[in-house]
Amino acid sequence: MPAPAAAATARYDIDGLMRAIGDVPVTTDTQRVRLRSRDYFWYSPVLNKQLHGKSADIVVTPRNEADVIAVAAACAKLRIPLTPRGAATGNYGQAVPLEGGVLLDLTGMTRIEWQRGGMIRCEPGLKMNELDAATRPNGWELRMHPSTKRMATIGGFVGGGSGGIGSINYGGLREPGNILAARVVTCEEKPRVIELRTDAAQKVNRAYGTTGIITALEMPLAPAFPWVDVIVTFDSFETAMATAYEVALADGVVKKLITPMIWPIPIHFPALKAHCPEGKHVVFCMIAETSIESFKAIIGTRGSITLEQPHDDAPGKEPLYEYTWNHTTLQWLKQDRTITYLQCLFPHDRVLESVKQMTDMFPDEVLPHTEFIRFAGRITCSALPIVRYTTEDRLNEIIALHEKNGVFIANPHVYTLEDGTRHKSTGADVLGMKAEADPYGLLNPGKMRTYKAVKQ
Amino acid sequence: MPAPAAAATARYDIDGLMRAIGDVPVTTDTQRVRLRSRDYFWYSPVLNKQLHGKSADIVVTPRNEADVIAVAAACAKLRIPLTPRGAATGNYGQAVPLEGGVLLDLTGMTRIEWQRGGMIRCEPGLKMNELDAATRPNGWELRMHPSTKRMATIGGFVGGGSGGIGSINYGGLREPGNILAARVVTCEEKPRVIELRTDAAQKVNRAYGTTGIITALEMPLAPAFPWVDVIVTFDSFETAMATAYEVALADGVVKKLITPMIWPIPIHFPALKAHCPEGKHVVFCMIAETSIESFKAIIGTRGSITLEQPHDDAPGKEPLYEYTWNHTTLQWLKQDRTITYLQCLFPHDRVLESVKQMTDMFPDEVLPHTEFIRFAGRITCSALPIVRYTTEDRLNEIIALHEKNGVFIANPHVYTLEDGTRHKSTGADVLGMKAEADPYGLLNPGKMRTYKAVKQ
Repeated sequence: MPAPAAAATARYDIDGLMRAIGDVPVTTDTQRVRLRSRDYFWYSPVLNKQLHGKSADIVVTPRNEADVIAVAAACAKLRIPLTPRGAATGNYGQAVPLEGGVLLDLTGMTRIEWQRGGMIRCEPGLKMNELDAATRPNGWELRMHPSTKRMATIGGFVGGGSGGIGSINYGGLREPGNILAARVVTCEEKPRVIELRTDAAQKVNRAYGTTGIITALEMPLAPAFPWVDVIVTFDSFETAMATAYEVALADGVVKKLITPMIWPIPIHFPALKAHCPEGKHVVFCMIAETSIESFKAIIGTRGSITLEQPHDDAPGKEPLYEYTWNHTTLQWLKQDRTITYLQCLFPHDRVLESVKQMTDMFPDEVLPHTEFIRFAGRITCSALPIVRYTTEDRLNEIIALHEKNGVFIANPHVYTLEDGTRHKSTGADVLGMKAEADPYGLLNPGKMRTYKAVKQ
Repeated sequence: MPAPAAAATARYDIDGLMRAIGDVPVTTDTQRVRLRSRDYFWYSPVLNKQLHGKSADIVVTPRNEADVIAVAAACAKLRIPLTPRGAATGNYGQAVPLEGGVLLDLTGMTRIEWQRGGMIRCEPGLKMNELDAATRPNGWELRMHPSTKRMATIGGFVGGGSGGIGSINYGGLREPGNILAARVVTCEEKPRVIELRTDAAQKVNRAYGTTGIITALEMPLAPAFPWVDVIVTFDSFETAMATAYEVALADGVVKKLITPMIWPIPIHFPALKAHCPEGKHVVFCMIAETSIESFKAIIGTRGSITLEQPHDDAPGKEPLYEYTWNHTTLQWLKQDRTITYLQCLFPHDRVLESVKQMTDMFPDEVLPHTEFIRFAGRITCSALPIVRYTTEDRLNEIIALHEKNGVFIANPHVYTLEDGTRHKSTGADVLGMKAEADPYGLLNPGKMRTYKAVKQ
């Protein structure tokens, strides 16, 4: 059982903190603090047990970088843990304060500093959908976004890492050029503000806020095409995969999303029932208007198009991407809480064979929906397959069988940074940045488990 | 020795043709007809012998599709060969009438029918630079173009085939989606006008005008980025190749051209002497302004940037791409006529190894400058290496050694469509289209050597 918030408060000098930060807005109401100390870790039954009830002692909501600096200084001085968060739509407990303390809610920092010629610089709390709304009139949009785009913040996305819709064109955030710069505040008595550019900016990518508090991001944009949401249905999942792969490889066909899903996944999409006939495997796509005709020529008679409508993810609309990536898991969980998921990366040089091998290995237990992406310059699939969960042992067995067969797994059932990677370690660069930005080890202690504080 | 134009005239009823086509503009001046019956086949010493002196009997310059139909009908009726041409910047003699007759100069047909949202429909004689000038104000440009962009026409490009600057993003013209539609006039007594869309449009791609006379093209466009021309110099060609490959694979770095060239090729670029130091291997690039910083981070300390200037290929300027692709050959030929070239495609799964193997195999005889491209969804290199020419036998030996080692060669020293491919054949689709569009075999007879006329 977790310590109640009141008891935790005793651990840290929260009153001292409040005095130190002056008029920076805070919330201490226990119930609200607890509610905001959660993210979507509950997709994992394993994490759900481990992280259940963990809570901050106070939520602080900075209005600007000066506020962030004041909070960081106070936390350093008083040795209070500090966990930054955006919209908390992540799945690895990255917004859950493992040892309590301050939850730094950055959603109030939404200012756009500038945008020009395919770049934007903004504060981390800006929602991605609002970012796109601001850049689209100028002909630009985010290069990639997660399926949570309509809720999530740009800072949370970068802090959480990965890629998503658009990664079929640009790869993931980790690819050179996909984060232009990050500005971070260190957690020290006298916080420093550090501008990390190009390669250096990667030190905050998927660091869950443990390597400094992001106060600004400079992101490259993509030309904003008019997109079309398309559903194609197939009699066999193998044909769906093969056809989708051809679309992925067709560099003349402009696209943003290619997601094959095996039946019976679409049974859990009631709103799309008319477009997902019983027993059919589907491919969900976003295709540029210009390329629709060529896209259809590739599909030929192998599949049937059941939906074709202009993409629109404005408030009140439901874009097709909210059925893909990890939203597939969410759609299923809405009806049935017995499943969970994995995160796979298939080998690019035998992608169809590898997906088929895994599909055949766990019939009706691991249900593939794959995401075509570019990864290190090659087209391959990642996947967040639905897993019918039985035990933690069986889950680990399934993971081991994937890895044994050359499918990389980023395990979403662990909460430390290291265990969630396929290397089970943290790079020297990132550890170096951590020592620089967080000498006392206060940025969500426990999250980067290989880090030893350089100062006491 | 070729037959003089006067003698050739006797073979065909040119007077009958002129009567039949009414006021369609023609040129019969022997010297001017001969001059316009040439293209850049003289890059090949082999073709130079074979095609030297071949000439049309008359040049006809249609103003519109109705004129094209009149000429095609007259040629069919009178059984006069007809060879369409654009700006004649090709290298395979595709604009050289092998059996005389009519040279149909399409450079007068330059009308833009419409442009909207990333697409353009225009007549085939429109120069590519003028096309870009018309679309750029709307934020668009051609997806790819040859190094001859400032002279060549869009119809000639499609008729000649291949790809070029931009193929690192979109692959070649052969990729699905890169030609949206072509409208062709058949060569029959009553010519038909056929609209070929998507896959079907591929039947005119690299057919040298033998499968119908193109009168309109619908082309997809690319977002027009502000490009930067960059030269990077290296101590070793191997490092230049490895670094360029990294840039090619970096999907977050937006680029349009990546051309490593071995020393001493740059010795033949006098205008760039200041930027191409003695003994240094170079990489010529076009990088989007947004990505310059990330590009430099990839280069690191491995190379030195000697030129970085906004790309500009307006009249009077000299863009960097006019040193790449087959312009490299031209730059060298300006100073020294003893060399020629090849056209290679390296295997994508061992591109660096394969380029090194060929470089080492022919030291100082075959000088690599490679072009990073996407091909069938994979990043690889094509190349048009400089070859120090000795004999035709040695040239064929060099070709054979490439092929033996897994490097595909599209032989630019042959003039038939079939021999210039790596398959030495014509696809059934293209042969079918040929039968449809040219039953009498009048569209440059001899060019598609496997075609037998279906009517006499």
